[in-house]
Amino acid sequence: MIRLFTPHDLFAGADLALDQGQSHYLASVMRQGVGDEVLLFNGRDGEWRARIGAVTKRGVAVKAQALARPQAMGPDLDLVIALVKRGRLETIVEKAAELGARRVRLVATERTNADRARIERLTAIATEAAEQTGRLDVPQVAEPVKLDRLLKDWEAPRRLLFCDEAGDARPIPEALEDQARGEAWAILIGPEGGFSPAERARLRALPFAVPASLGPRILRADTAAISALTLWQSALGDWTA
Amino acid sequence: MIRLFTPHDLFAGADLALDQGQSHYLASVMRQGVGDEVLLFNGRDGEWRARIGAVTKRGVAVKAQALARPQAMGPDLDLVIALVKRGRLETIVEKAAELGARRVRLVATERTNADRARIERLTAIATEAAEQTGRLDVPQVAEPVKLDRLLKDWEAPRRLLFCDEAGDARPIPEALEDQARGEAWAILIGPEGGFSPAERARLRALPFAVPASLGPRILRADTAAISALTLWQSALGDWTA
Repeated sequence: MIRLFTPHDLFAGADLALDQGQSHYLASVMRQGVGDEVLLFNGRDGEWRARIGAVTKRGVAVKAQALARPQAMGPDLDLVIALVKRGRLETIVEKAAELGARRVRLVATERTNADRARIERLTAIATEAAEQTGRLDVPQVAEPVKLDRLLKDWEAPRRLLFCDEAGDARPIPEALEDQARGEAWAILIGPEGGFSPAERARLRALPFAVPASLGPRILRADTAAISALTLWQSALGDWTA
Repeated sequence: MIRLFTPHDLFAGADLALDQGQSHYLASVMRQGVGDEVLLFNGRDGEWRARIGAVTKRGVAVKAQALARPQAMGPDLDLVIALVKRGRLETIVEKAAELGARRVRLVATERTNADRARIERLTAIATEAAEQTGRLDVPQVAEPVKLDRLLKDWEAPRRLLFCDEAGDARPIPEALEDQARGEAWAILIGPEGGFSPAERARLRALPFAVPASLGPRILRADTAAISALTLWQSALGDWTA
């Protein structure tokens, strides 16, 4: 069944007007009509079955019928990613949504040389991926900040898996072996040129940072992000019970 | 240093004429000239330092100087992937090269509805990714075959990690826990619509198949391929010593 994210409150009997894009998608692309059902979620109220009540030029109107799944959130995992070229950044946001990251935070580092990010477009990509992957929330995509600022403002107990290509760090599964489940985490992936020596030294000295390697080959930033998210979910996340 | 794949034999003193694309890349894009060094590999003779001897209209000529790394191969791992849309297939081939698959084999399944693959273009993508990732061979990309034919012709001792979304299979790390290192493996990823019930039944009955799940969310085919390659390398491959 088609799943759509909506910002509106969801409850039994709620009448919702879908936005233009969703209306077009439902009525024209997917050929849905009055009486057909869709699933809606908003990140707060769980997933609801809803029935199409009207298809007009102004858009599609639906009415929420019954709760299909109660709200549930994945593990508290952020992906912190250095700004990379647009295409790869879009891939990373899509995959972060599929792999259950709660937030994607963009950082500028010394060797970052990409354009600024288009947050609105990245949020649309995250939303579509969340709709397809079956999760009940959409990862938030935050405006870029400098690495320095990010680390100064760090919320203390959150741990940082620092993916360090240059060093002799242990592979991610080993580095996470002794960590407890249920903690808040972030995964940090550097730019294509890597972190500068000063940045690496600073990151390795942070008490909340866990350095780890991503294997014997050089990975592009998007591959590194996907591999690290996968291994984290598999070690500490919701891939196992 | 720039790394290039060449089909030619490599040995001390070998004189090589680079092809048109590589010559243009070296001379015009990367602004390399006479006396500059590059690294060459061919999948057989290891990685060689080579010096540019001439830059002419006909192309760039280089001479191999000294062995930089002896030939070494990654684990014997194939990725078997159902034909998916071109963009995602290209991503998968790039990532398979970065994540150390030896071969990418394309299959047509009951629910495959993608165009045929352009093997030449996929091979070029695999080559570029192999150059960047530092490996000493280029994964071979094979012409598509039907799933039925693939399984009939299976080379018996090779094991098959069957990524099964629909079932109650164990997560990949658990499924691989008891497996010995050093065996030949393949990872099988289905099309966006999944395998048909008949295909699933057949796959699960194969004595060499190990079914496994990819977590609680629905993954697109490219994400599934990257996650499975990552977890296999991490459990049985060359990510740990």
